[in-house]
Amino acid sequence: MTYCVAMRLDAGLVFLSDSRTNAGVDQVGTFRKMFIFENPGDRMIVLMSAGNLSISQSVRQIIADYKSPAGKSIWTATSMVEVAQIVGDAVRAVHERDAKALKNFNIDFNVSLILGGQIGGERCRMFQIYSAGNFIESQRESPYFQIGEAKYGKPIIDRIINPGTGLDEAAKCALISMDSTLRSNISVGLPLDLLIYKADSLSVSHFVTIDEKNQYFKMIHDTWGQQLKSVFDGIVDPVWDVAVTAQSEPIRVSAPQALRTAVAASPLQAVAQDGEQRQLS
Amino acid sequence: MTYCVAMRLDAGLVFLSDSRTNAGVDQVGTFRKMFIFENPGDRMIVLMSAGNLSISQSVRQIIADYKSPAGKSIWTATSMVEVAQIVGDAVRAVHERDAKALKNFNIDFNVSLILGGQIGGERCRMFQIYSAGNFIESQRESPYFQIGEAKYGKPIIDRIINPGTGLDEAAKCALISMDSTLRSNISVGLPLDLLIYKADSLSVSHFVTIDEKNQYFKMIHDTWGQQLKSVFDGIVDPVWDVAVTAQSEPIRVSAPQALRTAVAASPLQAVAQDGEQRQLS
Repeated sequence: MTYCVAMRLDAGLVFLSDSRTNAGVDQVGTFRKMFIFENPGDRMIVLMSAGNLSISQSVRQIIADYKSPAGKSIWTATSMVEVAQIVGDAVRAVHERDAKALKNFNIDFNVSLILGGQIGGERCRMFQIYSAGNFIESQRESPYFQIGEAKYGKPIIDRIINPGTGLDEAAKCALISMDSTLRSNISVGLPLDLLIYKADSLSVSHFVTIDEKNQYFKMIHDTWGQQLKSVFDGIVDPVWDVAVTAQSEPIRVSAPQALRTAVAASPLQAVAQDGEQRQLS
Repeated sequence: MTYCVAMRLDAGLVFLSDSRTNAGVDQVGTFRKMFIFENPGDRMIVLMSAGNLSISQSVRQIIADYKSPAGKSIWTATSMVEVAQIVGDAVRAVHERDAKALKNFNIDFNVSLILGGQIGGERCRMFQIYSAGNFIESQRESPYFQIGEAKYGKPIIDRIINPGTGLDEAAKCALISMDSTLRSNISVGLPLDLLIYKADSLSVSHFVTIDEKNQYFKMIHDTWGQQLKSVFDGIVDPVWDVAVTAQSEPIRVSAPQALRTAVAASPLQAVAQDGEQRQLS
């Protein structure tokens, strides 16, 4: 499994990937999932991948070597959407080559990619590319993409990230999102690759590989868990009688009393009937 | 989709279910997913279901009518594991009847159930029952089960719940877990059914149906989001230089400088090579 997240903000781009791959829990490996194509002053492009490792490695190899009949490559494309098309074409080339053989072994052709970056005077752009080689682009209303094990880490991003979020704050949010994912799914693992790109800088602004010794990530891991627990403790427990407290009205209590009366009045079969009516109403 | 969660604690049991069903986003309905089989003073049993609605309704119907050749039913079973076997048998009976016809329409036979409760002098027990009718039982190390859209709401449960957690605190945790799920997946929806069972009471302790007007759930929804944001704001942003702050060491910055040097020294192809080496090392 994998977890990668990228954010496109007014201030620039944030990319974060884990590095665990596995073929069953008895075969776990470490492979980096973030690839940087950088020509400082001209372009800064990041590609992150999830899915079958042989497919994503093949895609990357094809991209690195790619030249269109007209001589266009990832290094000469004049816009990010051209790069997305090159990546999509590479996915299709690998599909053409490998999909049938994989199917003979009941292996799905499964790869998903996040591509982001900036070329020359164009704005920062970010794409999610599917197994079919088609892709979607991030908009202001959807400022982040996730691939791989996305769900555990999604709620915190939904609550924090908007296009105005600063780069460091977004990096912090991505790391908390990753921390929740690491905790819930052992097939996602350290080290992490974190890359920050300031809009219009046309080169990597910050890049760091985070392992278990990284003090900042350890601090986030410890602090977030403790603080969450203390926020949880600070919320009042539900109140089950009709007294109204200052902070909250009690939960409305219903049904059971009526159910119990019905049960007392009639034999067992009636309980099932009553229960059934109550569920479907 | 569905989200149901149940917790087995020293103090008793907590059950929470949503009520949204859908067949595509253009066909959404409200069906309750929590079913109570109660004979006060004798037994209190709760069944929650996820998966294909026609299957789970059929299972429930079979359970309500079920009598073994020896006259055993859900109302006369002497232990919860016998009830789990009755439910498993009901799942298999529906499979026998419907699975082939469903397969003709490429519909998987998909149902999952959580069963919990207490019978007579036996301890509280909780089971998760699969589509094949087999089941697992909760232990102290795994005090909760989830079915349906489980991932969004799992991190908070992992951080809070242990066998010693009180019932009201557990109910609060279940509601926060549900709130995160509602926010991230529109196929999970209100109203919710929440049931609290105090160990050895042999009847429903509290039951409430929670809709959008419920003040306690609204308070949880608002407070949790705000507090999460303020905890987030309270964690320092990453520091990108080598100055060590009191609270955290900076993230270790690596690679990009070397990469940039390589880029400056050689043409584009070298960047891809360098990038590749860096990724795989």
